[in-house]
Amino acid sequence: MSKKLTSRTQDYSKWYNELVVKADLAENSAVRGCMVIKPYGFAIWEKMQAELDRMFKETGHQNAYFPLFIPKSLFEAEEKNAEGFAKECAVVTHYRLQNDPDKPGKLRVDPEAKLEEELVVRPTSEAIIWNTYKNWIQSYRDLPILINQWANVVRWEMRTRLFLRTAEFLWQEGHTAHETKGEALAEAELMNNVYAIFVENFMAIPVIKGLKTESERFAGADETYCIEALMQDGKALQAGTSHYLGQNFARAFDVKYVNKEGKQDYVWATSWGVSTRLMGALIMTHSDDNGLVLPPNLAPNQVVIIPIYKNEEQLEEISNVANGIMKELKSKSISVKYDSRDTFRPGAKFAQHELQGVPLRIVIGPKDLENNTVELARRDTLTKSIVALENLAETIESLLNQIQKEMFQKALDFRDAHITNVETFDEFKEILDTKGGFISAHWDGTSETEDRIKEQTKATIRCIPLDNIEESGLCVYSKKPSKRRVLFAKAY
Amino acid sequence: MSKKLTSRTQDYSKWYNELVVKADLAENSAVRGCMVIKPYGFAIWEKMQAELDRMFKETGHQNAYFPLFIPKSLFEAEEKNAEGFAKECAVVTHYRLQNDPDKPGKLRVDPEAKLEEELVVRPTSEAIIWNTYKNWIQSYRDLPILINQWANVVRWEMRTRLFLRTAEFLWQEGHTAHETKGEALAEAELMNNVYAIFVENFMAIPVIKGLKTESERFAGADETYCIEALMQDGKALQAGTSHYLGQNFARAFDVKYVNKEGKQDYVWATSWGVSTRLMGALIMTHSDDNGLVLPPNLAPNQVVIIPIYKNEEQLEEISNVANGIMKELKSKSISVKYDSRDTFRPGAKFAQHELQGVPLRIVIGPKDLENNTVELARRDTLTKSIVALENLAETIESLLNQIQKEMFQKALDFRDAHITNVETFDEFKEILDTKGGFISAHWDGTSETEDRIKEQTKATIRCIPLDNIEESGLCVYSKKPSKRRVLFAKAY
Repeated sequence: MSKKLTSRTQDYSKWYNELVVKADLAENSAVRGCMVIKPYGFAIWEKMQAELDRMFKETGHQNAYFPLFIPKSLFEAEEKNAEGFAKECAVVTHYRLQNDPDKPGKLRVDPEAKLEEELVVRPTSEAIIWNTYKNWIQSYRDLPILINQWANVVRWEMRTRLFLRTAEFLWQEGHTAHETKGEALAEAELMNNVYAIFVENFMAIPVIKGLKTESERFAGADETYCIEALMQDGKALQAGTSHYLGQNFARAFDVKYVNKEGKQDYVWATSWGVSTRLMGALIMTHSDDNGLVLPPNLAPNQVVIIPIYKNEEQLEEISNVANGIMKELKSKSISVKYDSRDTFRPGAKFAQHELQGVPLRIVIGPKDLENNTVELARRDTLTKSIVALENLAETIESLLNQIQKEMFQKALDFRDAHITNVETFDEFKEILDTKGGFISAHWDGTSETEDRIKEQTKATIRCIPLDNIEESGLCVYSKKPSKRRVLFAKAY
Repeated sequence: MSKKLTSRTQDYSKWYNELVVKADLAENSAVRGCMVIKPYGFAIWEKMQAELDRMFKETGHQNAYFPLFIPKSLFEAEEKNAEGFAKECAVVTHYRLQNDPDKPGKLRVDPEAKLEEELVVRPTSEAIIWNTYKNWIQSYRDLPILINQWANVVRWEMRTRLFLRTAEFLWQEGHTAHETKGEALAEAELMNNVYAIFVENFMAIPVIKGLKTESERFAGADETYCIEALMQDGKALQAGTSHYLGQNFARAFDVKYVNKEGKQDYVWATSWGVSTRLMGALIMTHSDDNGLVLPPNLAPNQVVIIPIYKNEEQLEEISNVANGIMKELKSKSISVKYDSRDTFRPGAKFAQHELQGVPLRIVIGPKDLENNTVELARRDTLTKSIVALENLAETIESLLNQIQKEMFQKALDFRDAHITNVETFDEFKEILDTKGGFISAHWDGTSETEDRIKEQTKATIRCIPLDNIEESGLCVYSKKPSKRRVLFAKAY
């Protein structure tokens, strides 16, 4: 059905782009920078959504929906946030098209239907949401507000790549309001932890939890928590962020509450989000030169059954066996597809399911009928074995659990092997050019040093890890004293 | 917590607006015509989504996601569709803001960041989707394509009302591609039936299935199936539509396939959608002067338990009983909330849960502790009874089923009592002005007659019911011969 993928060593970036398209995950659209998420890719995203949504609700959050548009006057109210996003805003200026008098059959913007105030298509929703919260909050009894929204957002990026950086993307954005600084900080850290648990346990991707430096923070935040993952090419990917917004938005939108002592104060805020970018992280962490490798938790089909037969009679016998297996698997909530299409040969089916990352493949042929066996192939290790039909569902259930764990362990081993402590800037540059990955180095805490390192190496500080131990040292660049190491890397 | 609602007889429209806001379903936002869907309203919408999504998947559909924006040149490709929506399009013309040189701290559209081609914010997605399908379809093997999308859409309506007509709304839109006309027609009818089953069984709202007349059809459709419901004020509400699009979009976007005989033909299409408008139908079908009345299937909390106590000791005893009830209800997947807030008096809690339409209220007081009973109150009938604690979960389970059925029956009786056969235009006008509801009348089949009736009465043909029997008669307006009755009504 498709030629082989470019290999990762040959051209990692090309491998990624080809894989996304050939595995039917997504494709570019007629709109610059906007993608079409195809049914197979969307089914994976739906599984992520369902699990995250469950976790959000379990931690006391409710969903709601706020407008797509932000009037310019609200958008500019929180200055840093506005400044951070102004350069990549899609702006609605008119509300009507009309027939173009010069071009029959064509339309043009109706010059008389110009909006009095331009509307920004939300790049993030703090402004419209805090303008709304203003009316919802009077006293401490109205707090906390713990709301999440699943939505599309638009950031007019100049260089786009499917899932990793697109002009429109899908995400969730949590927006919470609290009585105290402590509560807001705790919420921001809690949600960063929720993300870490989700990405590690569900997506089988190890992450490092940390804080962003000031220059890498979300525009309008006082502190940004993040989870950072490592891709197979040695580049880091920010998988999720959770922002402590202090009272910045409360001040910008004048959101005050009366506390238990009857005093007025501005409300404390957080916001946090993950996006379809996680699809990129998923692909680049686990996949190989044969295509996608999906952890069982995220696979739309966890098992595929393929019959090999020479005549109708054999097919019927095999189908009977397959139906029995499917029934048992479904009773264990394992998703399974029987691929008995007669328009494709087995080899083509193998290739397709391999490309699409189905974790387990069962092949049933005439020999298997005789021996009461099936052939079981693992997508992640590309290993095959002959397995008894008896207790097959139990075998598969435990194998799927094992795959989920082993995929995480493999990614963790790779990640841990790619964290390198360096002491000098020469070492820094050498490691970055040869091995890549995270570089753990002392930093003097200044933006100047951060900027220079970035200019000279393209590496940025991915995070100040939360679990770092205090350790005296000298900045890898300026040689000034430093109290802890931070993680540098080139990043997506 | 809130003053009484305006009554329905006093001012139906005001009653609706107040109810939506006071029951915490939605509110107007700072963006003209766009609403904020609040957590309680969104929880109801999520229940609708989950059930519809399940039904779509059961009928073989998959979800996907297409861009928010439609380049103008694609938007105008299908002429009728473009003409139908051009007047209400939000149009993105620029992709950047900059500091306004004349107004410090303010932003303005960057005149140098004008898009070469304007982008229409999707009012519906046929254009962008058929432009995509073009690349997905070569032969009959690629068909059918059965895709649904959950999305936000924007139609710049001049007069808006929460849920019923908003500039931005949430919906799902199915877009399918088929080999034959027969298949496409069958799909359009199937999905209209799915909508009917959902709205009747899940929302407890009776509907009439029918076809739209040519002038009421979706712009670009050859036939529009619909389901029509009747609101308590005697006005009709279109609850869902399913369009047979013929080959119109295939021709506009040049989407051809090679059939089994090796011949090329244009692909046949359908599209179908329901939206957050259904929330309006839900509210206006069942609610009363005390507030929202929710069918158990859609209630975020199906049961609320309220303790009445004089001291901490009593509260503790009541809480023990309540916890036991909750455990049993949850094991039956019945959602329940224990409202033990000490910041509100019981009366205020009763009013709030009544306003928010919780189907069943359990009150536990000191007397109940003595007698092993609880007080059970139905929201739909406003009736109360003392019920034994023994087997309470079973009692509640069957009562919830009963409420669901009785709410449907009540709405059906009302609807059926408001379908009036008329033979003369005087009768037509009189019924419309006095009783309202659906008027079943003969019609000569011409748009002229339809238009004149609309001009003179504001009533439109809601549908040509699918189950109508052929019956000779004379058009209620023109007195020309007619073969069947159609349903007229004033409509939302």
